[in-house]
Amino acid sequence: MSKTVRLGIAGLGTVGVGVVKIIRREAAMLRARTGQEITISAVSARTRDKDRGVSLKGYDWEDDPVALATREDVDVFVELMGGSDGPAKAATEAALKAGKDVVTANKAMLAVHGQDLAVLAESHGQVIRYEAAVAGGIPVVKSLVEGLAGNQITRVMGVMNGTCNYILTRMESAGLPYETVFEEANQLGYLEADPELDVGGIDAGHKLAILAASAFGTQVNFGAMELEGIGRLTIEDIRAAADMGYRIKLLGVAQMTGRGLEQRMSPCLVPAASPLGQLEGGTNMVVLEGDAVEQIVLRGPGAGEGPTASAVMADICDIARGVRLPVFGQPAETLAPATGAKSTSPAAYYLRMMLDDKPGALAKVATVLGEAGISIYRMRQYDHSGDGAPVLIVTHRTSRDALDRALGAMDRTGVVDGSPVAIRIEEV
Amino acid sequence: MSKTVRLGIAGLGTVGVGVVKIIRREAAMLRARTGQEITISAVSARTRDKDRGVSLKGYDWEDDPVALATREDVDVFVELMGGSDGPAKAATEAALKAGKDVVTANKAMLAVHGQDLAVLAESHGQVIRYEAAVAGGIPVVKSLVEGLAGNQITRVMGVMNGTCNYILTRMESAGLPYETVFEEANQLGYLEADPELDVGGIDAGHKLAILAASAFGTQVNFGAMELEGIGRLTIEDIRAAADMGYRIKLLGVAQMTGRGLEQRMSPCLVPAASPLGQLEGGTNMVVLEGDAVEQIVLRGPGAGEGPTASAVMADICDIARGVRLPVFGQPAETLAPATGAKSTSPAAYYLRMMLDDKPGALAKVATVLGEAGISIYRMRQYDHSGDGAPVLIVTHRTSRDALDRALGAMDRTGVVDGSPVAIRIEEV
Repeated sequence: MSKTVRLGIAGLGTVGVGVVKIIRREAAMLRARTGQEITISAVSARTRDKDRGVSLKGYDWEDDPVALATREDVDVFVELMGGSDGPAKAATEAALKAGKDVVTANKAMLAVHGQDLAVLAESHGQVIRYEAAVAGGIPVVKSLVEGLAGNQITRVMGVMNGTCNYILTRMESAGLPYETVFEEANQLGYLEADPELDVGGIDAGHKLAILAASAFGTQVNFGAMELEGIGRLTIEDIRAAADMGYRIKLLGVAQMTGRGLEQRMSPCLVPAASPLGQLEGGTNMVVLEGDAVEQIVLRGPGAGEGPTASAVMADICDIARGVRLPVFGQPAETLAPATGAKSTSPAAYYLRMMLDDKPGALAKVATVLGEAGISIYRMRQYDHSGDGAPVLIVTHRTSRDALDRALGAMDRTGVVDGSPVAIRIEEV
Repeated sequence: MSKTVRLGIAGLGTVGVGVVKIIRREAAMLRARTGQEITISAVSARTRDKDRGVSLKGYDWEDDPVALATREDVDVFVELMGGSDGPAKAATEAALKAGKDVVTANKAMLAVHGQDLAVLAESHGQVIRYEAAVAGGIPVVKSLVEGLAGNQITRVMGVMNGTCNYILTRMESAGLPYETVFEEANQLGYLEADPELDVGGIDAGHKLAILAASAFGTQVNFGAMELEGIGRLTIEDIRAAADMGYRIKLLGVAQMTGRGLEQRMSPCLVPAASPLGQLEGGTNMVVLEGDAVEQIVLRGPGAGEGPTASAVMADICDIARGVRLPVFGQPAETLAPATGAKSTSPAAYYLRMMLDDKPGALAKVATVLGEAGISIYRMRQYDHSGDGAPVLIVTHRTSRDALDRALGAMDRTGVVDGSPVAIRIEEV
């Protein structure tokens, strides 16, 4: 007698449709692998009458996701609506209280309410699974929470927004300015309705905040993340970085320091020959470092119907197979508050500035850096005509504090036009 | 009241010592993550009196691994002895029959006896976990069996023997012949006692056979694998491949074809710019392809104390967390026999041959290829002095049958010195 896991799926966009397709097509495979029939009891979406390219015959329709989530004939509520609050959160909470497990792809909801939802789930003996919320088809949550369970995690890094990586690699390969490539990406439908979610680093930051919780045994704390988008990057930065053997990536880094959890999502220089440096286009990459395993690199599609549905299905199969783990790898009540440490881990920096074209300008900048205790690793002054001289400096490792002091002092030299651009060089 | 998972560890080499260290050092972390105390009841190894750099105080000693495996106070038997038969197999079978779960790093045992052991385990309601048997610290078994459970797997590829990859990348970077680098690797202790396990592709083949079972729902069948080592590769091949934008890797490929399961472990050319092509030194890489997820690439250390112990600990933690899956992802009784399909999937090939330095020689070779229906994509004849002219040919996609026909016919032209070298170019 085979047992059944009955789903209620809320949200029939790309991912939801992908999940329905797999469940319809692969019933036999899923039965063989999980020992269960995986069925859909009911679905819900904003619009009922719409050709989604997949039959919904045999599934009840619910207009209200909360009603869907609490149906008698639903064992697992599959939340694919998105949005940190509103119906997604209401239905997720209702599902957990009604004794349903939850599978979700909703990074915003988990980044903002992850701790509360985990406490709620665990108090009701339910699980929340969210492989699809982070890095699309890459099984990164599983690799971190389960595959590296014997490690003290030392650092988590990732390029987790395909749109930003597309924009940056396209700027470099086509030699186009940010604005042009941004417009291209928009035309191609790569951008969220609010593009700031992508290019402002918010979407990728949500993902990093979720990973950091499991990695470091801390409560999700997206609010403590240092966040900087890619909008200020110029084609000159990208070219200069390439000249010096680097690539610029919107890189997320989470690491535990003596002063607390450091989380940042910001443009960084990484060596062009490193796996992160070689990552092209919309592909995602996550680097997991632990005291025993050293370094694992995972690469794969970060979005799209198939890959994201693959991650949702992995969670559904785990539940069908009886895998029941705490939401963030250990009971939510035992997670420590994540103090928001300002980035203090030392690093080398790339600086770009425009100097007045007059004698002694460079000397003044060099002096300011020296006085802040920052030594120069490489410097280039480019050919120029006109008023200012573009100067690039790569520093040796220094603290962010020293750098901020130096940047402040540079302002007061009177020889630097505008604000220097400073980008961290991450050691990968 | 906390519950306890009690281990019996057989084998205290590098990996066993690594596992003992983690369990001693990380009791609190493991308790937080699994909700269990993970303790060691007893250990076993060939030599008792030996400084292993870790205290064994508090653990009983067993000379006989079978006695260890069946102790009353052991819940999980951790088999880290190695060897396909002998004590490892005897103790594993004894453990399963006595109602113990098994965690092992033993690729040879699973490649040869995996199906029988899985049937035995499942008939007793026990699990066998073997993350450490494949690609060291990379959580590849978990990613495949659990993370991609919603996919029809289409292809599995991997560079899974660090020693071979070290030899090949070192030959290229230092311009040294195979024999010299082989000797270097030997001096560095990189080679197995029987080096053929490494350079003959057997060790990597064992790993691929294990992955193929879970990927394609087939019984492990190492005997059906096409196996070719790296011993015939010359520095000329490596240079020529590099010249044309390729790297040579000992690459394992498993894929389901209309004629059955194709499994091969052999030198292949891959694009130098691909993740596989860029893999240097002892690092491992596994590529998993599925109909939904498209392609996932996993990279990490394939050996060493920490990484391998990390994989063993992941399995132990899974058992402590109550994760209980069939050994190969679906019940062993439902796995189909793996018919050994000869490699029939078409591919481009790299050919290197020495032609007699006389008019018409090249024309004869070109004619032979044309008559076999093989078209030439690129050809190079190198500068030469002396008798023969080294010629490199890259073909368009062709079948292995057509290629074998052409190679046979080339022999009969009388213008080719010795046997041409033919290496498959894998599309990655």
